[in-house]
Amino acid sequence: MCKNHGLEVHEIDCEWGTGVPLDEYEKVLSEDTKHEIKAVLACQNETATGVTSDIGGVRKVLDKVGHPALLFVDSVSALASVDFRFDDWKVDMCVTGSQKGLMLPVGLGINAVSAKAMAVAQHATLPRRYFDWRELTAVEDRMRFAGTASLHMFYALQEGLAMLAEEGLENVLARHARLGEATRRAVEAWSAGNGVSLFAVNPSERSDSVTAVRMPEGIDAEAFRERVLAESKVALGGGLGKLNGQVIRIGHLGDLNEPMLLGALATIELHLQRQGIPHGKGGVAAAVSYLAEN
Amino acid sequence: MCKNHGLEVHEIDCEWGTGVPLDEYEKVLSEDTKHEIKAVLACQNETATGVTSDIGGVRKVLDKVGHPALLFVDSVSALASVDFRFDDWKVDMCVTGSQKGLMLPVGLGINAVSAKAMAVAQHATLPRRYFDWRELTAVEDRMRFAGTASLHMFYALQEGLAMLAEEGLENVLARHARLGEATRRAVEAWSAGNGVSLFAVNPSERSDSVTAVRMPEGIDAEAFRERVLAESKVALGGGLGKLNGQVIRIGHLGDLNEPMLLGALATIELHLQRQGIPHGKGGVAAAVSYLAEN
Amino acid sequence: MCKNHGLEVHEIDCEWGTGVPLDEYEKVLSEDTKHEIKAVLACQNETATGVTSDIGGVRKVLDKVGHPALLFVDSVSALASVDFRFDDWKVDMCVTGSQKGLMLPVGLGINAVSAKAMAVAQHATLPRRYFDWRELTAVEDRMRFAGTASLHMFYALQEGLAMLAEEGLENVLARHARLGEATRRAVEAWSAGNGVSLFAVNPSERSDSVTAVRMPEGIDAEAFRERVLAESKVALGGGLGKLNGQVIRIGHLGDLNEPMLLGALATIELHLQRQGIPHGKGGVAAAVSYLAEN
Amino acid sequence: MCKNHGLEVHEIDCEWGTGVPLDEYEKVLSEDTKHEIKAVLACQNETATGVTSDIGGVRKVLDKVGHPALLFVDSVSALASVDFRFDDWKVDMCVTGSQKGLMLPVGLGINAVSAKAMAVAQHATLPRRYFDWRELTAVEDRMRFAGTASLHMFYALQEGLAMLAEEGLENVLARHARLGEATRRAVEAWSAGNGVSLFAVNPSERSDSVTAVRMPEGIDAEAFRERVLAESKVALGGGLGKLNGQVIRIGHLGDLNEPMLLGALATIELHLQRQGIPHGKGGVAAAVSYLAEN
Repeated sequence: MCKNHGLEVHEIDCEWGTGVPLDEYEKVLSEDTKHEIKAVLACQNETATGVTSDIGGVRKVLDKVGHPALLFVDSVSALASVDFRFDDWKVDMCVTGSQKGLMLPVGLGINAVSAKAMAVAQHATLPRRYFDWRELTAVEDRMRFAGTASLHMFYALQEGLAMLAEEGLENVLARHARLGEATRRAVEAWSAGNGVSLFAVNPSERSDSVTAVRMPEGIDAEAFRERVLAESKVALGGGLGKLNGQVIRIGHLGDLNEPMLLGALATIELHLQRQGIPHGKGGVAAAVSYLAEN
Repeated sequence: MCKNHGLEVHEIDCEWGTGVPLDEYEKVLSEDTKHEIKAVLACQNETATGVTSDIGGVRKVLDKVGHPALLFVDSVSALASVDFRFDDWKVDMCVTGSQKGLMLPVGLGINAVSAKAMAVAQHATLPRRYFDWRELTAVEDRMRFAGTASLHMFYALQEGLAMLAEEGLENVLARHARLGEATRRAVEAWSAGNGVSLFAVNPSERSDSVTAVRMPEGIDAEAFRERVLAESKVALGGGLGKLNGQVIRIGHLGDLNEPMLLGALATIELHLQRQGIPHGKGGVAAAVSYLAEN
Repeated sequence: MCKNHGLEVHEIDCEWGTGVPLDEYEKVLSEDTKHEIKAVLACQNETATGVTSDIGGVRKVLDKVGHPALLFVDSVSALASVDFRFDDWKVDMCVTGSQKGLMLPVGLGINAVSAKAMAVAQHATLPRRYFDWRELTAVEDRMRFAGTASLHMFYALQEGLAMLAEEGLENVLARHARLGEATRRAVEAWSAGNGVSLFAVNPSERSDSVTAVRMPEGIDAEAFRERVLAESKVALGGGLGKLNGQVIRIGHLGDLNEPMLLGALATIELHLQRQGIPHGKGGVAAAVSYLAEN
Repeated sequence: MCKNHGLEVHEIDCEWGTGVPLDEYEKVLSEDTKHEIKAVLACQNETATGVTSDIGGVRKVLDKVGHPALLFVDSVSALASVDFRFDDWKVDMCVTGSQKGLMLPVGLGINAVSAKAMAVAQHATLPRRYFDWRELTAVEDRMRFAGTASLHMFYALQEGLAMLAEEGLENVLARHARLGEATRRAVEAWSAGNGVSLFAVNPSERSDSVTAVRMPEGIDAEAFRERVLAESKVALGGGLGKLNGQVIRIGHLGDLNEPMLLGALATIELHLQRQGIPHGKGGVAAAVSYLAEN
């Protein structure tokens, strides 16, 4: 238990590179017999580590324990790339953004809110102003005009959603799974002989939208990716927080296809070789073979 | 000798996949002691076959024989990708287009004309109308207004030239040479074991702006590239004229860098594998290694 | 009769500011009892003078005289702005461009050719090469690939045609007639008291796509329009050929609506006043009133 | 005094159509001898009414009374269109947006904060989270990465600022004053004979960025502007809050010049006539004359 901006927050620590620990969730929730916990939070896809957590599993824990807490999910880098079930998993609030699987520029923060959460909001006492749903949904004037809207982003959203519908959401998810696996095949080939390695610990939690790659001990991951960007114009993600300098991240979500991914993977392989980073051979070839056969 | 639209034309045949035969040029020109040949034509870079001819060599033949014919060069797919010397080679007319090394949309046909050719044009008797340089360069009204110009293309040309100047023409040519060689390394790896092969016969004539790849006997090259386009969104060139169905062509000129080229090569490798085309392994890896080390 | 590039051409002179003189056409054609005249040419809309000629009338003359000459029409600045009937008027060749009523950038020259003209082309002896319809329509390779096409212009053409279809061609023509008349109302108001005046002489020939305005004696029309452009960013057309310095031209074709036209007219009125050009008052008000009531 | 979200707020009422009442401010501040008022708020340009308030005057009141309250200014629709002096007027916080005088799409909310306000923020007790300056300016990680930024908006901001610098801020303000006055001249001409009228009461407070026009009694302003939009594609602002249906608003800020403004004014005049709204004649002519002479 700790205090965070006046709220009592129970943070569940877990090893970086692993997902939400369902057994820990179950333990904490089952001990909360007075139901003082109001909401359970989980991030579906952890951008920094390339780890996807089992949100459906969190719901099962809540149901098993019989705990009435709301389920809040950050699906920013998962939505439209990794399967997400607002209704099936009885999520109460989902927050996402325009700039990931929806394929738009940054600019829209999107909330999906359950009826249960909306009802709770009527009586919640946490101070709020700008994002106060009560006013946004109940005051007629605010429903017509809640400030000057980013109209261009709504046109973009229409197009992004149309593109998803045209491809079909199942196909979109399958494409992400396939391109994600191709990426992992490349990294696994490179990891032979104690070189670079997949950061996400558990195979089942490896993300289909982003892959974090741990660089070998003693290699400055930031210097590596800066040189990739400067010389080859491929923008890799850097390590966030304490992973800074230790990992590079390969984003593979949104409007992406085989040549785009393979071009990026081949460029990484080129730089592993050019920059003299210890690595196994045949990364791109492994990705190519996987894609050719699947 | 043959007739082509009322003109007597001496066509010099050569094997497809080879460049301008300088010894043949020399033979024909030295036999023309009355200097009835008015102009010598050569294509610097043959788009259909991926062959670059030795234009400087043609000039040397003309000088050696002492023949006064004009030298006309088609540099459409060479200019700004392969070294071209209008002044040094005493070219009299060069024709090129906006859509290749200048990196613009289709829309501008560009002529460079020597003083010698301009003088000859004053007295030439070949009928002409729209492209009559005499009127275009001497009639004041026509110099101010020669029809409604594609203004947007001139803005684009300014930008294309600025991009070339920013990178530096020598660097641009070096980049094309490097990416062209990487492409050839990939194709040579694929050609092991009687598979696909480079169409251009002579190593010194292999083009740095486009590589034609002969598909194995019995493989429909058109079907191959149509499937690459449909499934992977990589647009390969098809075989032109009698090469239709026999070759695919990989364009590597203009605004191109490592990840773009490697993405295309990896996608071709993927489809060689997926479509069951006999080929040697390690094409992309060979391109990657070449680029890493050079 | 005069010679123009080896062709015998009978040019019919007419006063600048008037359209094709049908009676002159009739006289010349009826005197040509041996039918040596192969084609009759007419420009439907004369951009320089703002005059629309009666193309249907030219057809009537041909039919009345019983002359078999082909009818060639330049409809560049008329098509899709002023009524044009290829079939009804039995036009044999129409030439137009992308940059006027089709609302595209410059870049496409468009021909419509009758079966009669196509048949004549098979046996015509005039030298031609690039635009030789025989090759373009009969040689299979050329029908598939007649050089690198301006693909982007064809996408634009699709959109331009879709916009015309969406509005409806009749509505498009009615809009041009209405905006053209509003323009003329403004100019007529300005012309009060011996000021500026409509250049087109006959009311029935005043163009709905462009209005040429004669500036008062002693006023440099070029200086006027250059100042309008520099100070107010409205680009007026200048006088072409011998009209240079005498007229300004107001284009009102294509993607144009009331505020766009009225903004231009009001800016001209502003500069008539600012630059001290003699003119009658109430030009814009007259245009506004016409548009309000029609 | 009233409560607003837990804060005690002293709202100073004033007649709609008038600006900040400086004498009322002085009265309230001078009565607050214990300095319980922490901040004085004023909106520099009221978008709904087309009224510009005297922010420099508010500063003079604070100084005269010797009151230490912070001065908070909403300059959203004023900045870069109407003179604003953050330093001279000792403003403590200014809030503005990207979508007005900065000429960008909606997407950036911009704060300027004085050292005095920043110091107060360290100890303020009002709950806050997302916009907590302490964290944004002091925590190193947050200064490097405060969430995914709207990069495209920053590029746009660079360009918007470059455009302002190129024209020169003084020229920009003079242009707004000139186009604003032209607009008012048109409305004043229309107001003859008890027709439409300027909503802003005091001439010195009439805004140079937006003009609110009161429609005659019995006319539905919303129906008027909807028809203008549908028929003529000019988007007028509607009445906000209690002015809905009573006023239309003409925006004249940002990237605007003579033909754009005159096109809009002429279109309004056209619709006053077409829709049978009582109005005086000669509005556009008055605007044209003013612009021609100034």
